[in-house]
Amino acid sequence: GPDERAAQAVRERDAVLTKPAGSLGRLEEIAVWLAAWTGKAKPQVTRPLVAVFAGNHGVTAKGVSPYPSSVTAQMVENFAAGGAAINQLCIANDLGLKVFDLALEYPTGDITEEAAMDEKTCAATMAFGMEAIAGGTDLLCIGEMGIGNTTIAAAICHGLYGGTAQEWVGPGTGADSEGLRRKVAAVQRAIELHRGHLKDPLELLRRLGGREIAAMAGAILAARMEKVPVIVDGYVATSAAAVLHAANPAAIDHCLFGHVSAEPGHRKVLEKLGKKPLLDLGMRLGEGTGAALAAGIVKAAALCHAGMATFEQAGVSGKVN
Amino acid sequence: GPDERAAQAVRERDAVLTKPAGSLGRLEEIAVWLAAWTGKAKPQVTRPLVAVFAGNHGVTAKGVSPYPSSVTAQMVENFAAGGAAINQLCIANDLGLKVFDLALEYPTGDITEEAAMDEKTCAATMAFGMEAIAGGTDLLCIGEMGIGNTTIAAAICHGLYGGTAQEWVGPGTGADSEGLRRKVAAVQRAIELHRGHLKDPLELLRRLGGREIAAMAGAILAARMEKVPVIVDGYVATSAAAVLHAANPAAIDHCLFGHVSAEPGHRKVLEKLGKKPLLDLGMRLGEGTGAALAAGIVKAAALCHAGMATFEQAGVSGKVN
Repeated sequence: GPDERAAQAVRERDAVLTKPAGSLGRLEEIAVWLAAWTGKAKPQVTRPLVAVFAGNHGVTAKGVSPYPSSVTAQMVENFAAGGAAINQLCIANDLGLKVFDLALEYPTGDITEEAAMDEKTCAATMAFGMEAIAGGTDLLCIGEMGIGNTTIAAAICHGLYGGTAQEWVGPGTGADSEGLRRKVAAVQRAIELHRGHLKDPLELLRRLGGREIAAMAGAILAARMEKVPVIVDGYVATSAAAVLHAANPAAIDHCLFGHVSAEPGHRKVLEKLGKKPLLDLGMRLGEGTGAALAAGIVKAAALCHAGMATFEQAGVSGKVN
Repeated sequence: GPDERAAQAVRERDAVLTKPAGSLGRLEEIAVWLAAWTGKAKPQVTRPLVAVFAGNHGVTAKGVSPYPSSVTAQMVENFAAGGAAINQLCIANDLGLKVFDLALEYPTGDITEEAAMDEKTCAATMAFGMEAIAGGTDLLCIGEMGIGNTTIAAAICHGLYGGTAQEWVGPGTGADSEGLRRKVAAVQRAIELHRGHLKDPLELLRRLGGREIAAMAGAILAARMEKVPVIVDGYVATSAAAVLHAANPAAIDHCLFGHVSAEPGHRKVLEKLGKKPLLDLGMRLGEGTGAALAAGIVKAAALCHAGMATFEQAGVSGKVN
């Protein structure tokens, strides 16, 4: 659980910093959140890390993406070469970047016809995600790359929350109306096929899958155990958090949602989770870009709290009774 | 006016960068905006500057702030010593900081009894604000410090847009219900006193005043002439932009509004200006803090545009068909 003593220490220091009480808004909440989940009364962000998990999806055979699934591996190359958006955002905010290629040459099963993963693969992929942060970090941003994975996220959300497939499906990388129809049909078929096996969130994850989603779920769990606060990226990353939340709502209390994406399902799932995103900039790229941008705000919040003078130190008068 | 050729060059490059079209949302718009107002087809942010203007206000005699007006000068000292929130945010986002003390020992006239400034003072203060950016910058964030100045901002907005004083007055640094009543009464009296002289925006500025507001208006004008894009901070800074907008709506086309503050009038004036703020984090500190935080996003947008690989460079496949 959260470290209430550390959180309280931050609240007490915040109250005497040279500013009106509450005037830094969410920056103040972020400083408290960092303290609560790192257990440190003087929270710092010194080794922030963006972890991007890449996976391929059998459901791309159903024409759910305008891009060929070969783009997943090509973008992983682009990450390695420093040419992607996430590379630039990591430079801008001085964040580490690790990219994990999850057996791209072995796409998951087509969820409209079979389970995405067998039990062993799903468990092993979650474990892989847990180990991904073993190198050490004090702020973890999680993101993903995977052609077809907004269809997977929609299936997971539809499976978790019901409603209609249409409510959870969006244009993703830019599906046209035909493409959207194919996405909706795929999600409908997947939910019909797996109906009756969706009550257990981990079984739902295995069937509707996505290796990168299993790995992100593992990373979120491991971060909690290692007292590392997490910034979750967009719709796909949030679907991983939603699986954990369905198993135990408190399991994602250490997660901050970096932004709300332009993919319409994202706003809906954030509402289901009761989470208020930090940014709302119409982004919908994935790769961890929204989380990385939000990490700049989180770093600034930590610096603000740590570096500001108190009224006493600065010789600034307080309120007149 | 905006440099359409530079803006178009950014749009064309953006279209071939390794991401789905439009997927970086407002980051893409920001890159175009930087090009349009710097005139550079490859916009960069290399010398960002936060300019904070500090002024004192005769209307504080009417008990409009819970803090004594001596806090303005004390906070200017705190800026110099590096202890304020704005100092930490400048460190966090690698921004220069210049603080301009506008004759703090000579508060403006109490606007409930007289004009804030005579014509000469108002013109000289605007000119001072224009010179403030002469040292060179390629992104100007404007902010302010001045006990009592949310009352001034409310009077300016009430004078420009009508409505009731209550609509434009908010708690500022934290007025209680008695304090709020005094703020509303002061704004009502000021508007009654100066009614009939509020049609000319510069005459309105002189009468309802605020040296820091006149200086910020000057800085915004000078930035336009020197092709420097501007990030405007909160309610008080926006009131300076609103004066210019009333004289000529195009005069603030080079301004981006960094955030919407928790001070309720800010959201209303942004609507009047037709401007969509970048951040919405419940901040209400002033000092340029919202603009400085937004500057991190603007820098990231510029870096993203400049540094990303194209589909061709990265060997990434485009859309099928």
